[in-house]
Amino acid sequence: VNEACQTFNLSAAELSTLRERAQANKARAYCPYSKFRVGAVLLTQDGTFIDGANVENASYPVGTCAERVAFGRAIVDGHGRKGGFKAVAVATDLTAPGSPCGMCRQFMREFCDLSMPIFMFDKNDNFSVLRLEELLPLSFGPDKLGVPDSAQRQAEQA
Amino acid sequence: VNEACQTFNLSAAELSTLRERAQANKARAYCPYSKFRVGAVLLTQDGTFIDGANVENASYPVGTCAERVAFGRAIVDGHGRKGGFKAVAVATDLTAPGSPCGMCRQFMREFCDLSMPIFMFDKNDNFSVLRLEELLPLSFGPDKLGVPDSAQRQAEQA
Amino acid sequence: VNEACQTFNLSAAELSTLRERAQANKARAYCPYSKFRVGAVLLTQDGTFIDGANVENASYPVGTCAERVAFGRAIVDGHGRKGGFKAVAVATDLTAPGSPCGMCRQFMREFCDLSMPIFMFDKNDNFSVLRLEELLPLSFGPDKLGVPDSAQRQAEQA
Amino acid sequence: VNEACQTFNLSAAELSTLRERAQANKARAYCPYSKFRVGAVLLTQDGTFIDGANVENASYPVGTCAERVAFGRAIVDGHGRKGGFKAVAVATDLTAPGSPCGMCRQFMREFCDLSMPIFMFDKNDNFSVLRLEELLPLSFGPDKLGVPDSAQRQAEQA
Ligand SMILES: [Zn+2]
Ligand SMILES: [Zn+2]
Ligand SMILES: [Zn+2]
Ligand SMILES: [Zn+2]
Repeated sequence: VNEACQTFNLSAAELSTLRERAQANKARAYCPYSKFRVGAVLLTQDGTFIDGANVENASYPVGTCAERVAFGRAIVDGHGRKGGFKAVAVATDLTAPGSPCGMCRQFMREFCDLSMPIFMFDKNDNFSVLRLEELLPLSFGPDKLGVPDSAQRQAEQA
Repeated sequence: VNEACQTFNLSAAELSTLRERAQANKARAYCPYSKFRVGAVLLTQDGTFIDGANVENASYPVGTCAERVAFGRAIVDGHGRKGGFKAVAVATDLTAPGSPCGMCRQFMREFCDLSMPIFMFDKNDNFSVLRLEELLPLSFGPDKLGVPDSAQRQAEQA
Repeated sequence: VNEACQTFNLSAAELSTLRERAQANKARAYCPYSKFRVGAVLLTQDGTFIDGANVENASYPVGTCAERVAFGRAIVDGHGRKGGFKAVAVATDLTAPGSPCGMCRQFMREFCDLSMPIFMFDKNDNFSVLRLEELLPLSFGPDKLGVPDSAQRQAEQA
Repeated sequence: VNEACQTFNLSAAELSTLRERAQANKARAYCPYSKFRVGAVLLTQDGTFIDGANVENASYPVGTCAERVAFGRAIVDGHGRKGGFKAVAVATDLTAPGSPCGMCRQFMREFCDLSMPIFMFDKNDNFSVLRLEELLPLSFGPDKLGVPDSAQRQAEQA
């Protein structure tokens, strides 16, 4: 834990809150189809925590994952423009850390620095942590369509 | 407007706020690909307004519509359990009202009474309004998979 | 059945094949998560039948419905340009006809005439049939973004 | 090219066909919104090539990528059961290879061995190639939900 904090420039309190909120947010899931609860939480550069949980649908492809609920609200609330994101955490009821699906990794790619850490907690608070660029190498980003990516947007505003 | 308020059991102030927030939320959109801004807002049965806007992605299918951002946060914040939704509004920059896409209609179907009104504002505040069951007739809902739908869930909690 | 054929300009053989292939295509589904098999089949204007079935994913939102598998292959094989679609059929294991989800209705909207019939078969071959414009009224189509819709594209090529 | 063939156990003719069909399939794309054409092709273990191209929608999230069109038809045609997939190729009009989006990587994860190569061609036939496990490390797969993954399914049938 200490090592993770140093590596990713987080305080012990921040990592602790990421863990607690990701775990707690599992209770907010609407998942009557999979019974697979996922909690998510984002930490913005200005210190705000933003919650998410999975929201399923009778037509499975229409539902959404926990990470995208959290990022959707964060972007709409302006956190993409205000400096971006410091870390993301997800929690499941598995006994080994579960990772974000590829669709969520792609969603994050649009808004996050490639070096942003993603913490993955299992039900017993054990965790893995990888950077976005490690979970989605050689990614397809906005630059491919001539749109500035997160790092460029932040630089333009600085 | 008065007629719409009576038909759908909304106060003039509520409809006015729906219109203003849907229009204002267009400014929150992240839509560098389509340049097509959509603002959305929900009104819960307990009087809370919840905002959304479209959030696009370099991989177009990975982005999300305004309505689903708003409903995702609403469900995660417990408004599905607390009595549900009274009305939804969307606003675009078109000169005639634009309607929610089929995917968003399906997302709403999971959580809303079929009689819930959906207000669609154009850029000049002209609007159309239809009930969910009018926008998504003969819908595929949770009952098809043995899961209670919105009306049943509310009844069980009453 | 005879009435449906007349109304929608199909031969008895065509409707029969739509029913048989929609039912048979249920066996092609990959649905280990929902166990909810859906078969689909399209009939193009030039008399070709194109098959689909649902293909699910461990990340539920990443899966796809039967109708979109069929339409994806049809479009890629050029049937959108070659005159379009005459009818669609779907079949489930329900004891009353199940309808296409909103996302699939929206996918069809891009390529089909609003008057195209959609046949929905239950497990006992009972069916409902509605036109696309009845399943997705006041739809959000290509014209809203300045792109020709199906009818326009066919007219331009005629 | 020779080295890639040896590494991934492909004949020169197979790799050549993958390149040609991926490039050719760009012409099958329906992409009036992005104007970003993508061609895809799969090679199954029994030597069949299966084509795809991107199919967009006025509601951007409702469209589908080239890779998922190809895999959807392949699964529905039984190739998931018949031994699986030997290689995938995608081609774009970019001047450096464009990679599959995260959603498509996730879709492939359900059906492909983690060691399957993904060839990415730019407009001038330059290519990168990476294995699925390199493009989607620490993936979220069927085993997390108690469903056999591709390798297990093949082993059970052997
Ligand atoms: Zn996800
Ligand atoms: Zn939508
Ligand atoms: Zn569907
Ligand atoms: Zn993709």
